[in-house]
Amino acid sequence: MDKQYIDQMIKEGRESMKMPVEDPEYKSDQDLKLPQPLLAKPAMRSVSIDLPIDFQNLPIENDFLKIINTRQSIRIYSEEKMSILELSYLLWCTQGVKEIRGQNYATIRTVPCGGARHQFETYMILQNVESLEDGYYHYLPMSHKIECLSAQQDLKPFISIALGDQVWAAKANINFFYSVVAYRCEWRYGIYAHRVALIDAGHISQNMYLAATSIGLGGCGVGYINAAVLNEAFELDGEEEFMFYAFPVGKRDKDLKLNEKDPYSFIR
Amino acid sequence: MDKQYIDQMIKEGRESMKMPVEDPEYKSDQDLKLPQPLLAKPAMRSVSIDLPIDFQNLPIENDFLKIINTRQSIRIYSEEKMSILELSYLLWCTQGVKEIRGQNYATIRTVPCGGARHQFETYMILQNVESLEDGYYHYLPMSHKIECLSAQQDLKPFISIALGDQVWAAKANINFFYSVVAYRCEWRYGIYAHRVALIDAGHISQNMYLAATSIGLGGCGVGYINAAVLNEAFELDGEEEFMFYAFPVGKRDKDLKLNEKDPYSFIR
Repeated sequence: MDKQYIDQMIKEGRESMKMPVEDPEYKSDQDLKLPQPLLAKPAMRSVSIDLPIDFQNLPIENDFLKIINTRQSIRIYSEEKMSILELSYLLWCTQGVKEIRGQNYATIRTVPCGGARHQFETYMILQNVESLEDGYYHYLPMSHKIECLSAQQDLKPFISIALGDQVWAAKANINFFYSVVAYRCEWRYGIYAHRVALIDAGHISQNMYLAATSIGLGGCGVGYINAAVLNEAFELDGEEEFMFYAFPVGKRDKDLKLNEKDPYSFIR
Repeated sequence: MDKQYIDQMIKEGRESMKMPVEDPEYKSDQDLKLPQPLLAKPAMRSVSIDLPIDFQNLPIENDFLKIINTRQSIRIYSEEKMSILELSYLLWCTQGVKEIRGQNYATIRTVPCGGARHQFETYMILQNVESLEDGYYHYLPMSHKIECLSAQQDLKPFISIALGDQVWAAKANINFFYSVVAYRCEWRYGIYAHRVALIDAGHISQNMYLAATSIGLGGCGVGYINAAVLNEAFELDGEEEFMFYAFPVGKRDKDLKLNEKDPYSFIR
Protein backbone atom coordinates (compact mmCIF):
# COMPACT_ATOMS: atom_id res chain seq x y z
CA MET A 1 0.00 0.00 0.00
CA ASP A 2 1.44 3.35 -0.95
CA LYS A 3 0.66 6.60 0.84
CA GLN A 4 -1.74 7.76 -1.84
CA TYR A 5 -3.81 4.57 -1.52
CA ILE A 6 -3.83 4.78 2.29
CA ASP A 7 -4.94 8.42 2.17
CA GLN A 8 -7.75 7.47 -0.18
CA MET A 9 -8.87 4.64 2.14
CA ILE A 10 -8.87 6.98 5.15
CA LYS A 11 -10.91 9.50 3.18
CA GLU A 12 -13.45 6.84 2.19
CA GLY A 13 -13.57 5.54 5.77
CA ARG A 14 -14.40 9.01 7.06
CA GLU A 15 -17.04 9.48 4.39
CA SER A 16 -18.69 6.21 5.49
CA MET A 17 -19.19 7.75 8.96
CA LYS A 18 -20.64 11.02 7.74
CA MET A 19 -24.28 11.79 7.23
CA PRO A 20 -24.43 12.15 3.44
CA VAL A 21 -26.27 14.96 1.73
CA GLU A 22 -29.47 13.17 0.79
CA ASP A 23 -30.87 13.15 -2.69
CA PRO A 24 -34.54 14.18 -2.27
CA GLU A 25 -35.40 12.31 -5.46
CA TYR A 26 -34.04 8.99 -4.20
CA LYS A 27 -36.67 6.37 -3.50
CA SER A 28 -36.01 3.31 -1.37
CA ASP A 29 -37.77 0.03 -2.08
CA GLN A 30 -40.21 0.88 0.70
CA ASP A 31 -40.96 4.19 -1.04
CA LEU A 32 -41.50 2.21 -4.24
CA LYS A 33 -43.92 -0.07 -2.33
CA LEU A 34 -41.90 -3.19 -3.04
CA PRO A 35 -42.65 -6.20 -0.80
CA GLN A 36 -41.18 -6.04 2.68
CA PRO A 37 -38.65 -8.70 3.71
CA LEU A 38 -39.33 -10.96 6.69
CA LEU A 39 -38.85 -9.44 10.16
CA ALA A 40 -36.59 -12.31 11.19
CA LYS A 41 -34.93 -15.25 9.52
CA PRO A 42 -37.09 -18.39 9.56
CA ALA A 43 -35.92 -21.43 11.48
CA MET A 44 -33.04 -23.21 9.74
CA ARG A 45 -33.87 -26.61 11.29
CA SER A 46 -37.10 -28.43 12.15
CA VAL A 47 -36.39 -28.71 15.89
CA SER A 48 -36.14 -25.79 18.30
CA ILE A 49 -35.45 -25.49 22.01
CA ASP A 50 -37.51 -23.47 24.49
CA LEU A 51 -35.70 -20.96 26.68
CA PRO A 52 -36.79 -20.14 30.25
CA ILE A 53 -37.96 -16.56 30.86
CA ASP A 54 -38.44 -16.49 34.63
CA PHE A 55 -35.61 -14.07 35.13
CA GLN A 56 -36.62 -13.42 38.75
CA ASN A 57 -34.61 -16.58 39.47
CA LEU A 58 -31.47 -14.81 38.35
CA PRO A 59 -29.45 -12.80 40.85
CA ILE A 60 -29.51 -9.57 38.83
CA GLU A 61 -27.46 -6.71 40.24
CA ASN A 62 -29.97 -3.94 40.66
CA ASP A 63 -27.77 -0.91 41.23
CA PHE A 64 -27.95 0.54 37.74
CA LEU A 65 -25.13 3.05 38.18
CA LYS A 66 -22.90 0.35 39.66
CA ILE A 67 -23.48 -1.72 36.51
CA ILE A 68 -22.52 1.28 34.36
CA ASN A 69 -19.46 2.01 36.49
CA THR A 70 -18.15 -1.54 36.84
CA ARG A 71 -18.67 -2.72 33.25
CA GLN A 72 -15.38 -3.56 31.67
CA SER A 73 -14.06 -5.83 28.96
CA ILE A 74 -13.44 -9.29 30.45
CA ARG A 75 -11.36 -11.76 28.47
CA ILE A 76 -10.50 -14.33 31.17
CA TYR A 77 -13.05 -17.06 31.84
CA SER A 78 -13.26 -19.91 34.34
CA GLU A 79 -14.89 -22.50 32.02
CA GLU A 80 -17.41 -23.21 34.80
CA LYS A 81 -20.83 -24.37 33.50
CA MET A 82 -23.27 -21.65 32.46
CA SER A 83 -27.02 -21.97 33.04
CA ILE A 84 -29.54 -21.93 30.21
CA LEU A 85 -31.34 -19.15 32.13
CA GLU A 86 -28.21 -16.98 31.86
CA LEU A 87 -28.07 -17.66 28.12
CA SER A 88 -31.77 -16.85 27.77
CA TYR A 89 -31.35 -13.58 29.70
CA LEU A 90 -28.49 -12.41 27.47
CA LEU A 91 -30.48 -13.18 24.33
CA TRP A 92 -33.55 -11.43 25.73
CA CYS A 93 -31.66 -8.28 26.73
CA THR A 94 -29.99 -7.96 23.33
CA GLN A 95 -32.59 -9.01 20.75
CA GLY A 96 -35.79 -9.98 22.62
CA VAL A 97 -39.01 -9.16 20.73
CA LYS A 98 -41.50 -7.33 22.96
CA GLU A 99 -44.15 -6.56 20.39
CA ILE A 100 -45.06 -6.64 16.71
CA ARG A 101 -46.39 -3.42 15.22
CA GLY A 102 -48.79 -3.21 12.31
CA GLN A 103 -49.42 -6.10 9.96
CA ASN A 104 -46.03 -7.67 10.61
CA TYR A 105 -44.56 -4.26 9.85
CA ALA A 106 -41.96 -4.05 12.63
CA THR A 107 -40.66 -5.75 15.74
CA ILE A 108 -40.18 -3.73 18.91
CA ARG A 109 -37.21 -5.20 20.72
CA THR A 110 -35.17 -4.65 23.86
CA VAL A 111 -32.72 -2.60 21.78
CA PRO A 112 -33.45 0.36 19.54
CA CYS A 113 -32.85 0.13 15.81
CA GLY A 114 -33.27 2.69 13.03
CA GLY A 115 -36.78 2.40 11.58
CA ALA A 116 -37.28 -0.68 13.81
CA ARG A 117 -35.77 -2.78 11.02
CA HIS A 118 -33.72 -5.06 13.31
CA GLN A 119 -31.56 -6.34 10.51
CA PHE A 120 -29.44 -8.59 12.69
CA GLU A 121 -29.42 -12.33 13.38
CA THR A 122 -27.80 -13.87 16.44
CA TYR A 123 -25.74 -17.05 16.18
CA MET A 124 -23.83 -18.78 18.94
CA ILE A 125 -21.18 -21.34 19.61
CA LEU A 126 -22.05 -22.85 22.98
CA GLN A 127 -19.68 -24.75 25.23
CA ASN A 128 -20.60 -26.16 28.63
CA VAL A 129 -24.05 -24.62 28.88
CA GLU A 130 -26.48 -26.52 31.10
CA SER A 131 -28.65 -29.10 29.27
CA LEU A 132 -27.40 -28.08 25.81
CA GLU A 133 -24.97 -29.95 23.64
CA ASP A 134 -21.86 -28.05 22.62
CA GLY A 135 -22.16 -26.77 19.08
CA TYR A 136 -23.50 -24.17 16.69
CA TYR A 137 -26.83 -22.47 17.40
CA HIS A 138 -29.20 -19.83 15.98
CA TYR A 139 -31.56 -17.59 17.97
CA LEU A 140 -35.24 -17.42 16.95
CA PRO A 141 -36.33 -14.04 18.34
CA MET A 142 -40.01 -14.32 17.32
CA SER A 143 -40.50 -17.25 19.69
CA HIS A 144 -37.49 -16.69 22.01
CA LYS A 145 -36.15 -20.14 21.19
CA ILE A 146 -32.85 -21.41 19.90
CA GLU A 147 -32.12 -24.11 17.37
CA CYS A 148 -29.06 -26.31 17.25
CA LEU A 149 -27.52 -26.14 13.79
CA SER A 150 -24.83 -28.68 14.54
CA ALA A 151 -23.70 -30.41 17.75
CA GLN A 152 -19.93 -30.63 17.88
CA GLN A 153 -17.10 -31.18 20.33
CA ASP A 154 -13.66 -29.55 20.47
CA LEU A 155 -14.78 -26.15 19.27
CA LYS A 156 -11.85 -24.19 20.68
CA PRO A 157 -9.63 -24.33 17.57
CA PHE A 158 -12.45 -23.09 15.36
CA ILE A 159 -13.34 -20.25 17.74
CA SER A 160 -9.73 -19.05 17.79
CA ILE A 161 -9.58 -19.01 14.01
CA ALA A 162 -13.00 -17.37 13.72
CA LEU A 163 -11.84 -14.52 15.96
CA GLY A 164 -8.61 -13.90 14.12
CA ASP A 165 -6.42 -15.96 16.47
CA GLN A 166 -7.76 -14.35 19.62
CA VAL A 167 -7.37 -17.56 21.66
CA TRP A 168 -8.85 -16.10 24.85
CA ALA A 169 -12.31 -16.25 23.25
CA ALA A 170 -12.13 -20.04 22.96
CA LYS A 171 -12.74 -20.41 26.71
CA ALA A 172 -16.00 -18.43 26.65
CA ASN A 173 -19.15 -20.49 27.28
CA ILE A 174 -20.92 -18.49 24.62
CA ASN A 175 -19.49 -16.88 21.55
CA PHE A 176 -22.22 -14.73 20.09
CA PHE A 177 -21.85 -13.93 16.40
CA TYR A 178 -23.92 -11.25 14.71
CA SER A 179 -24.84 -11.17 11.06
CA VAL A 180 -26.54 -8.50 8.98
CA VAL A 181 -29.43 -9.43 6.73
CA ALA A 182 -28.70 -6.41 4.61
CA TYR A 183 -31.93 -6.02 2.67
CA ARG A 184 -33.97 -5.78 5.88
CA CYS A 185 -32.67 -2.23 6.43
CA GLU A 186 -31.94 -1.46 2.77
CA TRP A 187 -35.62 -2.00 1.96
CA ARG A 188 -36.39 1.08 4.06
CA TYR A 189 -33.20 3.15 3.87
CA GLY A 190 -31.60 1.97 0.63
CA ILE A 191 -28.21 3.50 -0.02
CA TYR A 192 -28.36 5.27 3.37
CA ALA A 193 -28.83 2.08 5.42
CA HIS A 194 -25.36 0.94 6.36
CA ARG A 195 -23.97 3.74 8.50
CA VAL A 196 -26.96 3.65 10.84
CA ALA A 197 -26.86 -0.16 10.86
CA LEU A 198 -23.39 -0.13 12.43
CA ILE A 199 -24.53 2.28 15.15
CA ASP A 200 -27.47 -0.06 15.78
CA ALA A 201 -25.05 -2.94 16.23
CA GLY A 202 -23.43 -0.93 19.01
CA HIS A 203 -26.81 -0.77 20.78
CA ILE A 204 -26.85 -4.57 20.93
CA SER A 205 -23.22 -4.72 21.99
CA GLN A 206 -23.70 -2.30 24.87
CA ASN A 207 -26.77 -4.12 26.16
CA MET A 208 -24.69 -7.31 26.07
CA TYR A 209 -21.95 -5.66 28.13
CA LEU A 210 -24.43 -4.39 30.71
CA ALA A 211 -26.59 -7.52 30.86
CA ALA A 212 -23.50 -9.70 31.33
CA THR A 213 -22.20 -7.36 34.04
CA SER A 214 -25.60 -7.40 35.77
CA ILE A 215 -25.40 -11.16 36.36
CA GLY A 216 -21.70 -11.38 37.10
CA LEU A 217 -20.60 -12.67 33.69
CA GLY A 218 -17.78 -11.22 31.64
CA GLY A 219 -17.43 -10.52 27.94
CA CYS A 220 -15.94 -8.33 25.28
CA GLY A 221 -17.17 -7.12 21.90
CA VAL A 222 -14.92 -8.06 18.98
CA GLY A 223 -14.98 -6.32 15.61
CA TYR A 224 -12.00 -8.28 14.35
CA ILE A 225 -13.41 -11.56 12.98
CA ASN A 226 -12.71 -14.01 10.21
CA ALA A 227 -16.00 -13.55 8.42
CA ALA A 228 -15.28 -16.11 5.70
CA VAL A 229 -14.99 -19.09 8.05
CA LEU A 230 -17.96 -17.89 10.12
CA ASN A 231 -20.18 -17.39 7.07
CA GLU A 232 -19.41 -20.92 5.96
CA ALA A 233 -19.89 -22.49 9.40
CA PHE A 234 -23.29 -20.83 9.88
CA GLU A 235 -24.44 -21.37 6.28
CA LEU A 236 -24.54 -17.67 5.31
CA ASP A 237 -24.03 -16.61 1.70
CA GLY A 238 -21.72 -13.75 2.73
CA GLU A 239 -23.53 -11.22 0.57
CA GLU A 240 -27.23 -11.00 1.48
CA GLU A 241 -26.30 -12.08 4.99
CA PHE A 242 -22.81 -11.85 6.45
CA MET A 243 -21.10 -12.00 9.83
CA PHE A 244 -19.57 -8.78 11.10
CA TYR A 245 -19.29 -8.81 14.91
CA ALA A 246 -18.64 -11.22 17.76
CA PHE A 247 -19.19 -11.11 21.49
CA PRO A 248 -17.67 -13.85 23.68
CA VAL A 249 -19.26 -14.15 27.15
CA GLY A 250 -18.08 -16.48 29.88
CA LYS A 251 -18.22 -17.25 33.57
CA ARG A 252 -15.72 -15.01 35.25
CA ASP A 253 -12.65 -16.43 36.90
CA LYS A 254 -13.36 -15.87 40.59
CA ASP A 255 -9.66 -16.04 41.42
CA LEU A 256 -9.13 -12.99 39.25
CA LYS A 257 -9.46 -9.97 41.49
CA LEU A 258 -10.67 -7.02 39.52
CA ASN A 259 -10.08 -3.58 40.90
CA GLU A 260 -13.30 -2.02 42.04
CA LYS A 261 -12.10 1.51 42.41
CA ASP A 262 -14.12 4.54 43.37
CA PRO A 263 -15.33 5.46 39.87
CA TYR A 264 -15.31 9.18 40.65
CA SER A 265 -11.83 9.27 42.18
CA PHE A 266 -10.42 10.59 38.93
CA ILE A 267 -12.57 13.69 38.82
CA ARG A 268 -12.43 14.42 42.57
CA MET B 1 -29.59 8.11 -9.77
CA ASP B 2 -29.81 5.18 -12.14
CA LYS B 3 -30.09 1.56 -11.06
CA GLN B 4 -26.43 0.83 -11.75
CA TYR B 5 -25.33 3.69 -9.48
CA ILE B 6 -27.72 2.64 -6.72
CA ASP B 7 -26.50 -0.97 -6.92
CA GLN B 8 -22.91 0.25 -6.65
CA MET B 9 -23.76 2.40 -3.60
CA ILE B 10 -25.50 -0.56 -1.91
CA LYS B 11 -22.47 -2.73 -2.62
CA GLU B 12 -20.11 -0.15 -1.14
CA GLY B 13 -22.38 0.31 1.88
CA ARG B 14 -22.31 -3.42 2.58
CA GLU B 15 -18.54 -3.49 2.18
CA SER B 16 -18.24 -0.70 4.77
CA MET B 17 -19.95 -3.01 7.31
CA LYS B 18 -17.78 -6.04 6.59
CA MET B 19 -14.58 -6.96 8.37
CA PRO B 20 -12.04 -6.46 5.58
CA VAL B 21 -9.31 -8.96 4.85
CA GLU B 22 -6.40 -7.28 6.60
CA ASP B 23 -3.09 -6.60 4.91
CA PRO B 24 -0.47 -7.99 7.33
CA GLU B 25 2.06 -5.53 5.92
CA TYR B 26 -0.06 -2.49 6.74
CA LYS B 27 1.29 -0.31 9.52
CA SER B 28 -0.82 2.24 11.35
CA ASP B 29 0.71 5.44 12.67
CA GLN B 30 0.88 3.80 16.09
CA ASP B 31 2.84 0.90 14.54
CA LEU B 32 5.12 3.50 12.97
CA LYS B 33 5.59 5.09 16.42
CA LEU B 34 4.23 8.45 15.31
CA PRO B 35 3.12 10.80 18.11
CA GLN B 36 -0.20 10.00 19.72
CA PRO B 37 -3.02 12.55 19.46
CA LEU B 38 -4.57 14.02 22.60
CA LEU B 39 -7.02 11.82 24.52
CA ALA B 40 -9.65 14.56 24.50
CA LYS B 41 -10.10 17.91 22.86
CA PRO B 42 -8.72 20.78 24.98
CA ALA B 43 -11.08 23.40 26.33
CA MET B 44 -12.34 25.74 23.62
CA ARG B 45 -12.97 28.63 26.05
CA SER B 46 -11.20 29.94 29.14
CA VAL B 47 -14.14 29.44 31.51
CA SER B 48 -15.63 26.08 32.49
CA ILE B 49 -18.49 25.02 34.72
CA ASP B 50 -18.31 22.33 37.42
CA LEU B 51 -20.89 19.56 37.32
CA PRO B 52 -22.26 17.87 40.47
CA ILE B 53 -21.45 14.15 40.86
CA ASP B 54 -23.48 13.21 43.94
CA PHE B 55 -25.76 10.98 41.97
CA GLN B 56 -27.26 9.48 45.15
CA ASN B 57 -29.51 12.54 45.11
CA LEU B 58 -31.05 11.32 41.87
CA PRO B 59 -34.03 8.97 41.99
CA ILE B 60 -32.43 6.29 39.82
CA GLU B 61 -34.66 3.35 38.91
CA ASN B 62 -32.74 0.37 40.16
CA ASP B 63 -34.56 -2.53 38.54
CA PHE B 64 -32.09 -3.18 35.73
CA LEU B 65 -34.33 -5.48 33.72
CA LYS B 66 -37.21 -3.00 34.00
CA ILE B 67 -34.93 -0.33 32.50
CA ILE B 68 -34.06 -2.67 29.63
CA ASN B 69 -37.70 -3.62 29.10
CA THR B 70 -39.22 -0.14 29.32
CA ARG B 71 -36.62 1.76 27.29
CA GLN B 72 -38.22 3.20 24.20
CA SER B 73 -37.70 6.13 21.86
CA ILE B 74 -39.40 9.21 23.34
CA ARG B 75 -39.95 12.21 21.11
CA ILE B 76 -42.53 14.18 23.13
CA TYR B 77 -41.23 16.47 25.87
CA SER B 78 -42.89 18.66 28.48
CA GLU B 79 -40.38 21.56 28.38
CA GLU B 80 -40.25 21.42 32.20
CA LYS B 81 -36.90 22.55 33.67
CA MET B 82 -34.16 19.94 33.84
CA SER B 83 -31.67 19.82 36.73
CA ILE B 84 -27.94 20.21 36.25
CA LEU B 85 -27.54 16.93 38.17
CA GLU B 86 -29.59 15.15 35.51
CA LEU B 87 -27.39 16.65 32.80
CA SER B 88 -24.26 15.63 34.70
CA TYR B 89 -25.53 12.06 35.14
CA LEU B 90 -26.21 11.67 31.41
CA LEU B 91 -22.75 12.95 30.53
CA TRP B 92 -21.14 10.70 33.12
CA CYS B 93 -22.97 7.56 31.96
CA THR B 94 -22.06 8.14 28.31
CA GLN B 95 -18.52 9.53 28.29
CA GLY B 96 -17.33 9.79 31.92
CA VAL B 97 -13.59 9.15 32.39
CA LYS B 98 -12.95 6.69 35.22
CA GLU B 99 -9.22 6.29 34.84
CA ILE B 100 -6.18 7.14 32.70
CA ARG B 101 -3.95 4.22 31.72
CA GLY B 102 -0.23 4.48 31.06
CA GLN B 103 1.50 7.77 30.37
CA ASN B 104 -1.64 9.41 29.04
CA TYR B 105 -2.02 6.39 26.76
CA ALA B 106 -5.76 5.78 27.13
CA THR B 107 -8.88 6.83 28.98
CA ILE B 108 -11.09 4.21 30.58
CA ARG B 109 -14.64 5.46 30.35
CA THR B 110 -18.16 4.40 31.25
CA VAL B 111 -18.54 3.07 27.70
CA PRO B 112 -16.31 0.63 25.84
CA CYS B 113 -14.43 1.74 22.74
CA GLY B 114 -12.12 -0.17 20.39
CA GLY B 115 -8.53 0.16 21.61
CA ALA B 116 -9.82 2.61 24.27
CA ARG B 117 -9.38 5.40 21.70
CA HIS B 118 -12.60 7.27 22.62
CA GLN B 119 -12.57 9.32 19.47
CA PHE B 120 -15.79 11.20 20.23
CA GLU B 121 -16.55 14.66 21.56
CA THR B 122 -19.86 15.61 23.15
CA TYR B 123 -21.53 18.92 22.36
CA MET B 124 -24.89 20.15 23.57
CA ILE B 125 -27.56 22.69 22.96
CA LEU B 126 -29.16 23.33 26.34
CA GLN B 127 -32.56 24.87 26.92
CA ASN B 128 -34.15 25.41 30.31
CA VAL B 129 -31.53 23.57 32.36
CA GLU B 130 -31.24 24.72 35.98
CA SER B 131 -28.62 27.45 36.57
CA LEU B 132 -27.29 27.34 33.00
CA GLU B 133 -27.93 29.84 30.26
CA ASP B 134 -29.52 28.49 27.12
CA GLY B 135 -26.92 28.00 24.41
CA TYR B 136 -24.17 25.92 22.91
CA TYR B 137 -21.92 23.82 25.16
CA HIS B 138 -18.98 21.39 25.03
CA TYR B 139 -18.24 18.57 27.51
CA LEU B 140 -14.76 18.33 29.03
CA PRO B 141 -14.53 14.64 30.01
CA MET B 142 -11.08 14.84 31.66
CA SER B 143 -12.47 17.12 34.38
CA HIS B 144 -16.20 16.31 34.06
CA LYS B 145 -16.99 19.95 33.37
CA ILE B 146 -18.80 21.74 30.59
CA GLU B 147 -17.98 24.99 28.87
CA CYS B 148 -20.43 27.41 27.33
CA LEU B 149 -19.41 28.15 23.75
CA SER B 150 -22.15 30.66 23.17
CA ALA B 151 -25.19 31.71 25.21
CA GLN B 152 -28.18 32.20 22.96
CA GLN B 153 -31.95 32.43 23.10
CA ASP B 154 -34.56 31.10 20.66
CA LEU B 155 -32.66 27.97 19.72
CA LYS B 156 -35.64 25.98 18.45
CA PRO B 157 -35.40 26.99 14.78
CA PHE B 158 -31.72 26.06 14.66
CA ILE B 159 -32.31 22.69 16.35
CA SER B 160 -35.02 21.83 13.83
CA ILE B 161 -32.73 22.63 10.93
CA ALA B 162 -29.78 20.82 12.52
CA LEU B 163 -31.86 17.64 12.80
CA GLY B 164 -33.12 17.72 9.24
CA ASP B 165 -36.46 19.39 10.04
CA GLN B 166 -37.31 17.01 12.87
CA VAL B 167 -39.16 19.69 14.84
CA TRP B 168 -39.94 17.43 17.81
CA ALA B 169 -36.27 17.67 18.87
CA ALA B 170 -36.54 21.43 19.38
CA LYS B 171 -38.49 20.88 22.62
CA ALA B 172 -35.77 18.72 24.22
CA ASN B 173 -33.92 20.32 27.15
CA ILE B 174 -30.71 18.83 25.85
CA ASN B 175 -29.73 18.07 22.31
CA PHE B 176 -26.53 16.08 22.49
CA PHE B 177 -24.40 16.17 19.35
CA TYR B 178 -21.52 13.78 18.82
CA SER B 179 -18.49 14.45 16.69
CA VAL B 180 -15.65 12.16 15.63
CA VAL B 181 -12.07 13.34 16.01
CA ALA B 182 -11.04 10.94 13.30
CA TYR B 183 -7.30 10.72 13.84
CA ARG B 184 -7.75 9.60 17.45
CA CYS B 185 -8.81 6.14 16.24
CA GLU B 186 -6.98 6.26 12.89
CA TRP B 187 -3.67 6.68 14.75
CA ARG B 188 -4.17 3.15 16.10
CA TYR B 189 -6.33 1.44 13.47
CA GLY B 190 -5.59 3.46 10.33
CA ILE B 191 -7.65 2.39 7.35
CA TYR B 192 -9.55 -0.11 9.55
CA ALA B 193 -10.75 2.50 12.08
CA HIS B 194 -14.12 3.68 10.82
CA ARG B 195 -16.30 0.59 10.89
CA VAL B 196 -15.51 -0.09 14.54
CA ALA B 197 -15.91 3.62 15.36
CA LEU B 198 -19.57 3.52 14.30
CA ILE B 199 -20.23 0.47 16.50
CA ASP B 200 -18.55 2.37 19.36
CA ALA B 201 -20.93 5.27 18.79
CA GLY B 202 -23.78 2.82 19.37
CA HIS B 203 -22.31 2.00 22.79
CA ILE B 204 -22.68 5.65 23.78
CA SER B 205 -26.15 5.85 22.28
CA GLN B 206 -27.42 2.82 24.18
CA ASN B 207 -26.03 4.05 27.50
CA MET B 208 -27.82 7.33 26.82
CA TYR B 209 -31.10 5.49 26.22
CA LEU B 210 -30.74 3.48 29.42
CA ALA B 211 -29.43 6.31 31.62
CA ALA B 212 -32.28 8.58 30.48
CA THR B 213 -34.80 5.80 31.13
CA SER B 214 -33.31 5.16 34.58
CA ILE B 215 -34.14 8.72 35.75
CA GLY B 216 -37.47 9.07 33.98
CA LEU B 217 -36.25 11.16 31.06
CA GLY B 218 -36.98 10.45 27.42
CA GLY B 219 -34.84 10.61 24.32
CA CYS B 220 -34.11 9.23 20.90
CA GLY B 221 -30.93 8.70 18.91
CA VAL B 222 -30.88 10.44 15.53
CA GLY B 223 -28.56 9.51 12.68
CA TYR B 224 -30.20 11.95 10.30
CA ILE B 225 -28.52 15.31 10.92
CA ASN B 226 -27.49 18.38 8.98
CA ALA B 227 -23.79 18.05 9.65
CA ALA B 228 -22.83 21.21 7.75
CA VAL B 229 -24.79 23.60 9.97
CA LEU B 230 -23.72 21.73 13.12
CA ASN B 231 -20.04 21.75 12.17
CA GLU B 232 -20.23 25.49 11.65
CA ALA B 233 -22.17 26.20 14.84
CA PHE B 234 -19.72 24.20 16.99
CA GLU B 235 -16.59 25.44 15.17
CA LEU B 236 -15.59 22.06 13.71
CA ASP B 237 -13.61 21.89 10.47
CA GLY B 238 -15.80 19.06 9.12
CA GLU B 239 -12.83 16.93 8.11
CA GLU B 240 -10.54 16.21 11.09
CA GLU B 241 -13.60 16.56 13.33
CA PHE B 242 -17.17 16.30 12.15
CA MET B 243 -20.65 15.83 13.59
CA PHE B 244 -22.37 12.53 12.83
CA TYR B 245 -25.01 11.73 15.46
CA ALA B 246 -27.50 13.49 17.70
CA PHE B 247 -29.45 12.50 20.78
CA PRO B 248 -32.23 14.80 22.05
CA VAL B 249 -33.24 14.19 25.69
CA GLY B 250 -36.08 15.93 27.49
CA LYS B 251 -38.36 15.85 30.46
CA ARG B 252 -41.19 13.50 29.62
CA ASP B 253 -44.68 14.77 29.21
CA LYS B 254 -46.45 13.34 32.26
CA ASP B 255 -49.83 13.65 30.58
CA LEU B 256 -48.65 11.22 27.95
CA LYS B 257 -49.55 7.74 29.15
CA LEU B 258 -47.11 5.22 27.79
CA ASN B 259 -48.14 1.63 27.64
CA GLU B 260 -46.26 -0.41 30.19
CA LYS B 261 -47.12 -3.82 28.92
CA ASP B 262 -45.95 -7.15 30.22
CA PRO B 263 -42.74 -7.39 28.20
CA TYR B 264 -42.94 -11.17 27.94
CA SER B 265 -46.57 -11.31 26.83
CA PHE B 266 -45.48 -11.74 23.25
CA ILE B 267 -43.52 -14.93 23.82
CA ARG B 268 -45.94 -16.45 26.34
